[in-house]
Amino acid sequence: MEKRTIVIEGIAASSGFASGKVFRLEAVELNVERRNITDSQSEVMRFEKAVETAKKELTIIKEHAQRELGDDKAAIFAAHILVLSDPELLNPIKDRIISETINAEFALHDVSQMFITMFEQMENEYMKERAADIRDVVQRVLSHLLGVEITNPSQINEEVIIVAEDLTPSDTAQLNRNFVKGFVTDIGGRTSHSAIMARSMEIPAVVGTKEIMANVLHGEFLIIDGIEGKAIINPDQETINEYENKKRQFELQKVEWAKLVNEKTVSKDGHHVELAANIGTPADVRGVLENGAEGVGLYRTEFLYMGRTDLPTEDEQYEAYKTVLEKMEGKPVVVRTLDIGGDKELPYLKLPHELNPFLGFRAIRLCLEKTEIFRTQLRALLRASKYGNLKIMFPMIATLDEFREAKAVLLDEKKKLLAEGTEVLETIEIGIMVEIPSTAIISDVFAKEVDFFSIGTNDLIQYTMAADRMNEKVSYLYQPYNPAILRLINMVIKAAHNEGKWVGMCGEMAGDEIAIPLLLGLGLDEFSMSATSILPSRSQLTQLTKSEASQLAQKALAMGTAEEVVALVKEMF
Amino acid sequence: MEKRTIVIEGIAASSGFASGKVFRLEAVELNVERRNITDSQSEVMRFEKAVETAKKELTIIKEHAQRELGDDKAAIFAAHILVLSDPELLNPIKDRIISETINAEFALHDVSQMFITMFEQMENEYMKERAADIRDVVQRVLSHLLGVEITNPSQINEEVIIVAEDLTPSDTAQLNRNFVKGFVTDIGGRTSHSAIMARSMEIPAVVGTKEIMANVLHGEFLIIDGIEGKAIINPDQETINEYENKKRQFELQKVEWAKLVNEKTVSKDGHHVELAANIGTPADVRGVLENGAEGVGLYRTEFLYMGRTDLPTEDEQYEAYKTVLEKMEGKPVVVRTLDIGGDKELPYLKLPHELNPFLGFRAIRLCLEKTEIFRTQLRALLRASKYGNLKIMFPMIATLDEFREAKAVLLDEKKKLLAEGTEVLETIEIGIMVEIPSTAIISDVFAKEVDFFSIGTNDLIQYTMAADRMNEKVSYLYQPYNPAILRLINMVIKAAHNEGKWVGMCGEMAGDEIAIPLLLGLGLDEFSMSATSILPSRSQLTQLTKSEASQLAQKALAMGTAEEVVALVKEMF
Repeated sequence: MEKRTIVIEGIAASSGFASGKVFRLEAVELNVERRNITDSQSEVMRFEKAVETAKKELTIIKEHAQRELGDDKAAIFAAHILVLSDPELLNPIKDRIISETINAEFALHDVSQMFITMFEQMENEYMKERAADIRDVVQRVLSHLLGVEITNPSQINEEVIIVAEDLTPSDTAQLNRNFVKGFVTDIGGRTSHSAIMARSMEIPAVVGTKEIMANVLHGEFLIIDGIEGKAIINPDQETINEYENKKRQFELQKVEWAKLVNEKTVSKDGHHVELAANIGTPADVRGVLENGAEGVGLYRTEFLYMGRTDLPTEDEQYEAYKTVLEKMEGKPVVVRTLDIGGDKELPYLKLPHELNPFLGFRAIRLCLEKTEIFRTQLRALLRASKYGNLKIMFPMIATLDEFREAKAVLLDEKKKLLAEGTEVLETIEIGIMVEIPSTAIISDVFAKEVDFFSIGTNDLIQYTMAADRMNEKVSYLYQPYNPAILRLINMVIKAAHNEGKWVGMCGEMAGDEIAIPLLLGLGLDEFSMSATSILPSRSQLTQLTKSEASQLAQKALAMGTAEEVVALVKEMF
Repeated sequence: MEKRTIVIEGIAASSGFASGKVFRLEAVELNVERRNITDSQSEVMRFEKAVETAKKELTIIKEHAQRELGDDKAAIFAAHILVLSDPELLNPIKDRIISETINAEFALHDVSQMFITMFEQMENEYMKERAADIRDVVQRVLSHLLGVEITNPSQINEEVIIVAEDLTPSDTAQLNRNFVKGFVTDIGGRTSHSAIMARSMEIPAVVGTKEIMANVLHGEFLIIDGIEGKAIINPDQETINEYENKKRQFELQKVEWAKLVNEKTVSKDGHHVELAANIGTPADVRGVLENGAEGVGLYRTEFLYMGRTDLPTEDEQYEAYKTVLEKMEGKPVVVRTLDIGGDKELPYLKLPHELNPFLGFRAIRLCLEKTEIFRTQLRALLRASKYGNLKIMFPMIATLDEFREAKAVLLDEKKKLLAEGTEVLETIEIGIMVEIPSTAIISDVFAKEVDFFSIGTNDLIQYTMAADRMNEKVSYLYQPYNPAILRLINMVIKAAHNEGKWVGMCGEMAGDEIAIPLLLGLGLDEFSMSATSILPSRSQLTQLTKSEASQLAQKALAMGTAEEVVALVKEMF
């Protein structure tokens, strides 16, 4: 009997096509029963030993991830190791073992469940991920306590497509690229760890299908469409052929893109724009160069501060900045000063809980109050400046006063360093992120004082539409193509050009296929995106003409809704 | 020996001047000790009786507040009564009494403290107020359990100025206006319950002084300056004379203002604007008429939904809307449809917890999903429309699609009512709140489809500046005079006038002395404010000329910072 074809829809998390046999990665059910014990001291020791073993394993996984995926992806395991060093989690568990003379498994399960429930109840992707982190770590310790082996995806040694309820960060990091051709999960969104890792491993992935596990058996044949966000179980021969063809096209296109690595980005009518990459750590520079970026448009310095128990020293930062500048060999590197707060917390700063963290005490607001942190970073940057083409920008600038104050601190540190006899690059461009509506609206005033703008669309869109981009209930309002957003971008570019300044963009929008013709038309000078988007974007830009794009942009500015803008772009190209 | 004069600075919470003898309102320290009891059933009954007594008292206070202060101020006591009916608070207390055989006082104190701590740790005015509510209610129940009488400010029978660490909502509601000339507290801000109540009782108040209790004795002489936010302890004769003079001037000014009650609001060069009032309940209409408002510019319908356990019926709403429309006798009444979510929660809707509620699922976003709630309100409004001059506006509109969808629902209900033979006012203007930057930025597109705009500056400012107005750490960024805000207002007014539509403003900015010349200059048609601000604003507007104000506004639009704008206004007037 012919098997029935089933098409499952999900979220396209990593592009590309793959087909192959299904490997069902089942979560082992670790049964935890409450038992009374007699020797609570030795039970605590048993618990501590399991924690130590788990930490050692995590260290190995972390090193593996560092080699294969880069520092920022490995940071999650540093965070896991920190969870296992956190007295707020460990002490209550030990207390329970002693005060109730119960087994470690139960105490661990019970206490951790409380934390997991707390994080899960938060209607927010980021906090839910923290629940996933704790669950992942707890499973690992439990498996050691129970002597049960949890399925280890690193042991897969044939070509497969993984299907799972969910992939933990440690599952994903252990996947062997030689055998795992892609994965499909019931849980997760475009920003979940597993999705991000799939993109950096360059394997196709579909997440959030809700029903793949209920529909597929181990060993069945499956096609993944990582562009449309589909999984096809038991496809017929015609579909298989169709996807073989798509896959070939995709591979061919990649080859075409690869030819553009050393090219400039010039439109058909001769207009040059700069394509730069966003990075998080020095390790990311390799990908930047491999993909032919003309510079770094956004170096997010937060990773230096994350997954640790205290602030990085000036020297640690200096080394990181110097490495990036040297590796970029004179190409521009735009460094954004510390942008924490909001969804990016640093536990050791003990910031107050806020009702609306996205509208709260973060980024430059925090740096202008905690100036010792700010000054340390600026000194490290200034000292590193002589190794390349450094530009510095401040995040979350809302008023001219903030920019003037931040710039004054920077110039003060520069003066001090020069007085100490330290060499500092003479002309460092100083710019700002435009991610708050007020700043876009009076960008003509700012343009007289800054050296450049970099439009941060992720935040600019959420403030302009008053919609938290992490909140699923209002995600339909996160509209990059809304004419209001296009008008703000237009204002910023015009204001800058009037004063002879340049404008970049470092939000996700800069690498978006629909947005690119509009941005070219509005006159954007620099597009900064994830390294893997550089070549497709260059390919797209070289096929456009600036004059047509300008006409398109002018029409879009006068429209009423995002849907109308999208229809216009699709019609013209 | 002459007593030393001490000047204490605080937050001006309610304007005016007062002087008199200090009445220190001391919080009674209710000592709670843990005791073991023998009969836990009768202890639970003792607890339940104390709760019932407290509820009865609160009902009396609520009725008193309703008569003296209006429905919306009384709503807080409805909320207090609900706290005392909440099984989430009561059951754990009873459980503790039974399971640990302990006294009711201790169980009450211990359980409630947990809730209070939770709310207090939130860095947010609104949530802190909820901690104050619980503390207030718990004190009341405790005093009955302990048989201790708590100081009752309603028993004050001589002219005094009250000085306290803090005033609970029930303290404030019980103040006798005949004897209490004003108050000063160490705790609180401009938006705390006590400050709001002082303004509606029209007695001067200074809050948040931090050190008044440490510096003043019972019976000492004190001057309150509710305009500058100062308290002067033991003033010398010269200061007393000076303030007697200020008080006289203030009273004279009030008399002058009173003469304007039946006047139109016309600038010196003959330009007419409309002054309207913001209301929360039908009871507020009295104040609107007494203060000579030309209409209701914002009827907040949320109070109908608050302090209760389920949704109001269509008929309940119909009665409220009808009452307001009838009492306003044909003057325009702009009703804003339900704006909940954000800082205004309705427990019975069981909305998900959000990480950034101000950027979340609220107002029209919620109404367009929960259409049964929305349709009920619209039907009630349409049925009431024939009793006056009703205009309807939708809150939190971010996209044109939302407006079109909301309007379609409204027209659908209108059609249904007409088909049922129900009379509906033929021409009801349909407008929107402009409180989200995107809507201001493409207001030219909106202006073709809406009948009017009402600019909600409270939200518009916080989104445009990306700063939660409730968050003290970023409150310096809540800048009504920032040129970016003025430019948005300018865009909206120009866009509306181009299409022959009118523009109102219903945020706090509309009644602000510095803002008024700017808004007149920008061409604002309707200013809607708290009723007590109408006459001073009318007085101010009649002394301005539109042409000078326009020049001022044009200059302000080109400036860089809020400080520069304020300096400009102060210099010109």
